[in-house]
Amino acid sequence: MNSQEYLNQLRHSCAHLLAAAMLKLYPDTKLTIGPAIENGFYYDFDFEKPISEENFTTIENKMRELLKTWESFSHREVTEQEAKEFYKDNEYKRELIDEIVKKGEKITFYKAGDFEDLCRGGHSENPRKDIGAFKLLSIAGAYWRGDEKNKMLTRIYATAFPTKEELAAHLVMLEEAKKRDHKKLGKELDLFVFSETVGKGLPLWTPKGSTIRRILERFIVDEEIKRGYLHVYTPDIANIALYEKSGHYPYYKDSMYAPITIDDEKFMLRPMTCPHHFELYLNKPRSYKELPMRYAELAKLYRYEQSGELSGLQRVRTFTLADAHIITRKDQAEKEVNDVLDLIEYIAAVFQLEPGKDYSYRLSLGDRNDEKKYFKDDTSWDHAEEILRKVLKARNAHYIEAPGEAAFYGPKIDIQMKNVNGKEDTAFTVQYDFVMPKRFKLTYITEERTEEEPVVIHRSSIGAIERVMAFLIEKYAGAFPIWLAPVQVVLLPIADRHNEFGEKVQKELQNAGIRVELDMRSERLQAKIRDATLQKAPFMGIIGDKEVDNGAISVRKRDGEDLGSVTVDSFLQQLRQSIDKKI
Amino acid sequence: MNSQEYLNQLRHSCAHLLAAAMLKLYPDTKLTIGPAIENGFYYDFDFEKPISEENFTTIENKMRELLKTWESFSHREVTEQEAKEFYKDNEYKRELIDEIVKKGEKITFYKAGDFEDLCRGGHSENPRKDIGAFKLLSIAGAYWRGDEKNKMLTRIYATAFPTKEELAAHLVMLEEAKKRDHKKLGKELDLFVFSETVGKGLPLWTPKGSTIRRILERFIVDEEIKRGYLHVYTPDIANIALYEKSGHYPYYKDSMYAPITIDDEKFMLRPMTCPHHFELYLNKPRSYKELPMRYAELAKLYRYEQSGELSGLQRVRTFTLADAHIITRKDQAEKEVNDVLDLIEYIAAVFQLEPGKDYSYRLSLGDRNDEKKYFKDDTSWDHAEEILRKVLKARNAHYIEAPGEAAFYGPKIDIQMKNVNGKEDTAFTVQYDFVMPKRFKLTYITEERTEEEPVVIHRSSIGAIERVMAFLIEKYAGAFPIWLAPVQVVLLPIADRHNEFGEKVQKELQNAGIRVELDMRSERLQAKIRDATLQKAPFMGIIGDKEVDNGAISVRKRDGEDLGSVTVDSFLQQLRQSIDKKI
Repeated sequence: MNSQEYLNQLRHSCAHLLAAAMLKLYPDTKLTIGPAIENGFYYDFDFEKPISEENFTTIENKMRELLKTWESFSHREVTEQEAKEFYKDNEYKRELIDEIVKKGEKITFYKAGDFEDLCRGGHSENPRKDIGAFKLLSIAGAYWRGDEKNKMLTRIYATAFPTKEELAAHLVMLEEAKKRDHKKLGKELDLFVFSETVGKGLPLWTPKGSTIRRILERFIVDEEIKRGYLHVYTPDIANIALYEKSGHYPYYKDSMYAPITIDDEKFMLRPMTCPHHFELYLNKPRSYKELPMRYAELAKLYRYEQSGELSGLQRVRTFTLADAHIITRKDQAEKEVNDVLDLIEYIAAVFQLEPGKDYSYRLSLGDRNDEKKYFKDDTSWDHAEEILRKVLKARNAHYIEAPGEAAFYGPKIDIQMKNVNGKEDTAFTVQYDFVMPKRFKLTYITEERTEEEPVVIHRSSIGAIERVMAFLIEKYAGAFPIWLAPVQVVLLPIADRHNEFGEKVQKELQNAGIRVELDMRSERLQAKIRDATLQKAPFMGIIGDKEVDNGAISVRKRDGEDLGSVTVDSFLQQLRQSIDKKI
Repeated sequence: MNSQEYLNQLRHSCAHLLAAAMLKLYPDTKLTIGPAIENGFYYDFDFEKPISEENFTTIENKMRELLKTWESFSHREVTEQEAKEFYKDNEYKRELIDEIVKKGEKITFYKAGDFEDLCRGGHSENPRKDIGAFKLLSIAGAYWRGDEKNKMLTRIYATAFPTKEELAAHLVMLEEAKKRDHKKLGKELDLFVFSETVGKGLPLWTPKGSTIRRILERFIVDEEIKRGYLHVYTPDIANIALYEKSGHYPYYKDSMYAPITIDDEKFMLRPMTCPHHFELYLNKPRSYKELPMRYAELAKLYRYEQSGELSGLQRVRTFTLADAHIITRKDQAEKEVNDVLDLIEYIAAVFQLEPGKDYSYRLSLGDRNDEKKYFKDDTSWDHAEEILRKVLKARNAHYIEAPGEAAFYGPKIDIQMKNVNGKEDTAFTVQYDFVMPKRFKLTYITEERTEEEPVVIHRSSIGAIERVMAFLIEKYAGAFPIWLAPVQVVLLPIADRHNEFGEKVQKELQNAGIRVELDMRSERLQAKIRDATLQKAPFMGIIGDKEVDNGAISVRKRDGEDLGSVTVDSFLQQLRQSIDKKI
């Protein structure tokens, strides 16, 4: 059993404990289900009278009291009739029993202390010893079976750990994550907003958020161009025929928005860029000398998300992907994939992300027997998977293999990122595609004047700009490094008589391309420092009599460090160095 | 009579002459209509047998022969019966007669020489003397009355001038315009393509075209930011409610695409940016200290164009407007408008466009009596028009006034650009808006803590990127200035043994940010020079034995000028200077 399985059993046991305590405290409560989830567990209850977080201490105390007697779980098999008799007042459990019966499975009850519950098992051996610490976290409404046609139940989220220390560390992390939440910081730092009139999932970037985005986008584009990518612009809508040609339409239909009819033709908001780049390639015959062709684009894409799934910049209805399609000869593919990983790791390093710690790779493989999910071409699968594996191995990359997670058209390397909650997600992918070239009849003329089919590598270098932004806001807790900070310096004249010099310094810095604000309000210096600190500008430049006399500014970092009085020139030099080094 | 009216009469007379010649040569031909148009005239015929451009000389000779006898036009009024008897074999003319009768107008026939035609008049006094020169230009199909349900007629395009010299100059300009046509050059220089599968009016920008576009866009954005604009990103789709709120929807409906339904809500591809920027402004209460707020965006917009209207990058179905909305106190508006014109003229100057010659202003005014077309608020109209007029006058700007051409919500300054055909069009506008602030309830808190309504200046600085690109391709005939050229230098090793040094120079230039190509084909130097010249790269760098020995390159400009042998360093310095100066 690995540590995650151990934790899951512990937490599932603790969910039983929560249910047991509830029945003691509120005997009319109907129990439903209580699974372990990532980082904790929950239990859904149907209460007679609503409860609130104020009851948490009482409940936790009761749980602690009961836990003393929970030495182990015992279980017994029961008949449908027995089970239903046991739950004669609980329609939820009876519904679950019906399902178990329908599947032809056995009905089992699990017991610890004097509490017995319908359950499939999977508990700690000794809950009293194993559950070292637990905590109830929050209450939320949840429909029975997640279906809004059903009754709304009360869900209690909680977590449990083997030791008090681990729980404490987890709670600190949760607190920190809450402070770093990009939705909260996005509002506080005025980076992006939503408008109900414009619509859900459609962020409007404020001037400050847009500054960060623009710098980020230019950085990506310039870096890619340096590495031989051909950056292009292709339209965000296209005739439905394009996605029928690519085969995406029937497959991707549910995540695409409804067609727009123009002059009896149907146009779609594009859900992906590849067919657009293929059409560019197809514009004229291509020679082996032109390959690899690395079409790249900051591509606006549109994918359907249920309104309940939308979340800040993390899940939106339109996003901009740093996308590319490398059309390459088969024998060049290995080097190309390797170069892509070089680029990804370079960009990650700029954001101080460490491979193996902040992100890792997952090699998603096909299944030769699943001909529905995977294009049938065993040789190509073998070849493609071997290339990706070879690249990862040669780099000594941190990666795991995930059978059955490949795309329809070939295997891929998923870039798995960890966010501030410690949650791991696929941020973006590098895919090896031997199917689309056939579909689009992509060819090139070889040195021997024959016609050959290239392969395509679909890749991103950083993912969707919106998600990167959400990620970076949380990573930096809004305190962006100098090169990205929307306001790099706030100048703070101490009194009105220092404003004139402030304006002179502002102009000087602005002319050098520095993003600078001048706070000329008639406020006390402490208030100005507090406001500049709140907006997390990397530097404050305080200006008083001495500074005006010496033609200098007194520089203070956002963490409070005092850099003393420096001339504008030397400050500028220091700023430029930090910006060039991207720190 | 101004010179344009004089030309129109001359050309309309020449259309009669063409019809007369046709009847002599092809007596079975049915005449229809033949108006003067910009730069010439046409006549639509229904021929028994098709004719081709090979017949033009015969027709022109016959016209010249007839013209000798055309001393003047006489006219007479005829009854409906007489007219229809005259045109008993011509159903087109009878249809026209019916319309004249229906309108209660008089039926008139105009005669010159022995040719008489149904006509409203408007001819030269003495065609023989006035028509100094004419030329038939081309043949095209055209449906009768422009309706595709009607018969396809044959349209002959032609032109006429008072003198042979003027005709010759015009033909030279047509020839030049043809060579500079952006659709032709876009293809030859591989700048953009269209794909039938993607759809009409949806250009795909190739890597080379995209390079020019990217540089252009960054130039605009950077220049605007320098001038205090706040560049933002807002979504390209929005709930229909947004355009209902702005009042655009019913008014703009015909040029918007059909709604996309998402979760029972209707979303529209945006046809304009203003309501998006207003929603950003509305996100929090605003103080007078924040004004003017200059929201700017490279905004992707979608407007319906009939497929017949689509033309290269000039008329497309989605375009990117360098858009901005300045939300300003009324008393700041004059300065803001003036600053906008400063920016426009600065950017125009970068492209070597002269005010008064290549572009001029048009002050479009409202009509106080037309309450349907114009928002009723005489005082605001007077005030707004006076501000725009004052700015134009104070600048000594080249402008004309155009009553009844204003927008619904206020007067505007149209920027009228002349293209290579000498054709003048409104490229973009600067609009003064006192209506939207009311609609959106835009307000700000004054110094006295009262609430006040700002005004909005809608403006572009350069227009739509697509149209600018079309314009610039034609202006430069594809020979872009160095700072914009997609390939700035092509290196031409004379023999294979010079390739290595070529690669070294290429790397050196690339590291300095220069866009450079290296032609390592085993072709003769002359062939390489020809190809580099065809792609209009500003510089060629020829590399032979001497160059390798001296660590230099032999530089040649695209116009053939030989700059001799220079070191890579000094060449680089020269390039950097030109790029910085945008030449």
